[in-house]
Amino acid sequence: MRENRPTLAVTMGDPAGVGPEIIVGTWMETLLHQWCRPVVLGHPEILRRAVKFWHTRVEVVEVDTPEEAEPAPGVIPCIPCGDDDVLDAPKAAIDARAGQAAYAAVVAATRLALDGRVDGITTAPLHKEALYRAGHGYPGHTELLADLCGVDDYAMMLYLGPEEGSLSEAGLAVVHVTLHMSLRSACNELNEEAVLGKARLADRFMARLSGSRPRIGVCALNPHCGEGGFFGDEERTIIAPAVERGLAEGLSLEGPLATDTLMVNARDGHFDAIVAMYHDQGHIALKLLGMHRAVNVTLGLPIIRTSVAHGTAFDIAWHQHAETGSMLEALRVAAKLVGTCDA
Amino acid sequence: MRENRPTLAVTMGDPAGVGPEIIVGTWMETLLHQWCRPVVLGHPEILRRAVKFWHTRVEVVEVDTPEEAEPAPGVIPCIPCGDDDVLDAPKAAIDARAGQAAYAAVVAATRLALDGRVDGITTAPLHKEALYRAGHGYPGHTELLADLCGVDDYAMMLYLGPEEGSLSEAGLAVVHVTLHMSLRSACNELNEEAVLGKARLADRFMARLSGSRPRIGVCALNPHCGEGGFFGDEERTIIAPAVERGLAEGLSLEGPLATDTLMVNARDGHFDAIVAMYHDQGHIALKLLGMHRAVNVTLGLPIIRTSVAHGTAFDIAWHQHAETGSMLEALRVAAKLVGTCDA
Repeated sequence: MRENRPTLAVTMGDPAGVGPEIIVGTWMETLLHQWCRPVVLGHPEILRRAVKFWHTRVEVVEVDTPEEAEPAPGVIPCIPCGDDDVLDAPKAAIDARAGQAAYAAVVAATRLALDGRVDGITTAPLHKEALYRAGHGYPGHTELLADLCGVDDYAMMLYLGPEEGSLSEAGLAVVHVTLHMSLRSACNELNEEAVLGKARLADRFMARLSGSRPRIGVCALNPHCGEGGFFGDEERTIIAPAVERGLAEGLSLEGPLATDTLMVNARDGHFDAIVAMYHDQGHIALKLLGMHRAVNVTLGLPIIRTSVAHGTAFDIAWHQHAETGSMLEALRVAAKLVGTCDA
Repeated sequence: MRENRPTLAVTMGDPAGVGPEIIVGTWMETLLHQWCRPVVLGHPEILRRAVKFWHTRVEVVEVDTPEEAEPAPGVIPCIPCGDDDVLDAPKAAIDARAGQAAYAAVVAATRLALDGRVDGITTAPLHKEALYRAGHGYPGHTELLADLCGVDDYAMMLYLGPEEGSLSEAGLAVVHVTLHMSLRSACNELNEEAVLGKARLADRFMARLSGSRPRIGVCALNPHCGEGGFFGDEERTIIAPAVERGLAEGLSLEGPLATDTLMVNARDGHFDAIVAMYHDQGHIALKLLGMHRAVNVTLGLPIIRTSVAHGTAFDIAWHQHAETGSMLEALRVAAKLVGTCDA
């Protein structure tokens, strides 16, 4: 084992969803323990149920602090958080008790990261409606984390690592200018400062990950890149001026570009990062390119945070085994971002 | 050669773009001539330039009517249309003369189809700004054709034929509820009647192509399918009621569904058709799934019309050879839709 493995806090997510199960599934991967020292935040009894679900013999060990954790393929250290009433919440269903448990784990993990007691956090999926029923009205994980960290300038990024035959050598990052809101609101809230801000975040992230300046493609908002103003003017009034300013700062930007073609060019390795104007613009492409490998990274926080790119998957939770690829990759990317690991 | 091959009118598209070249490239495919009797509408001299560009010996033969055409891999019958001034228009650039030539070919081909003199038309790409400069203010090919045919209820569909390892056996069709307009206008113009109308068109097309009732996935407009109303209400007020009505009519519909996941499920063969709410929603997915194989089909016209799914590609036109796969597939699908060919 490497001496300098970073310590990562892993939140259990909504106990009714696939979170506990994918954590246990990922734990058994020996590579994980070469990359980092993972510690789970959540209810240990739920984790033990997930161990049973896997029919495996991994041991869940309760610990009080990340420092005393001794994670290994057969040992899951768990810092207990949340109330016991979550043990009565139904599986694969929206429930306030499950939402509260998910919330408590995120809060505890974020505090540990802000206090420097862990090097980063990786989160399992929570369910927004369960969170809402527990009294926490956040549109998503990203906004909750930004609030806990007290930041305004942040962005949700999807990241796909490099793969043979497609994508650039650095992988592909997609940063969203607007996120968890209606499409109509996304049109209304788009502005030059936000586009430029997200381009800067993408530049910084990919430079940190790959060591060189990323080539960033900037999406148009409208079809055919606005068709010279016939199909909307946001390309001319908002996106192009943001690109100009970014170029003046030295960023390697190209755009606004017609999004359908841009995504094909990104797949073919012509870009390292993409600035998407709204949620589905980025998500449709990234999920098609690598549904089970995609990782969600929050940019702009004072802490390192990665996540799986999928949801609670109540349709299969506690019933079929979920894909663990995204969780493993989320932990790899978090470890890599800490900079003390060459995963 | 089959006796019952359908006759297809092939428009040359914008002469400054890749249209003439991909027609010549496609012509040399012997399969094409087993599927149909293709006849080009355009300026014969431009076609001869494209033959030279290919360094090939195909002969361009001027004919007055589709009936007298005798197409073969080495012979391109061409019904002349448009003025000679197009011969002076620059290559790979927007020009009113080129726009007028493209327009004239579409008008002539549509008339032949409406008169029953050809069985269908397949169009090479035109450039909307060139069309506009020539005095024809259409947002796209689709709207021009609908106008020439005098129909209001039409839709642009992208179609990908079946492929080993992905997609359903019938291939995948994506119909767009809104098309050539800003994203903001798409939000404003979405309505229940339009969603239902496009679902009916998709159902009819795929039933005709495959002989069985297609399974149709209906996209949400907003991210996370509106997240239960938190991210917009169009799912509840517009799309769900349209799906209910379609189900009552016997259509096999599912939706509204979160689009990023729906597209992955469609790729994996769970749907035969998709109803997309706006241009890029459908185009991002289809181009990633098969940029060079995708075909554009106009639904709701009294004539059969297919097209390549790409544009004039001025960046490579008359300079590098363009991919001809989409043109060949567009001709195959048109022939198949005529119903007299088992291509």
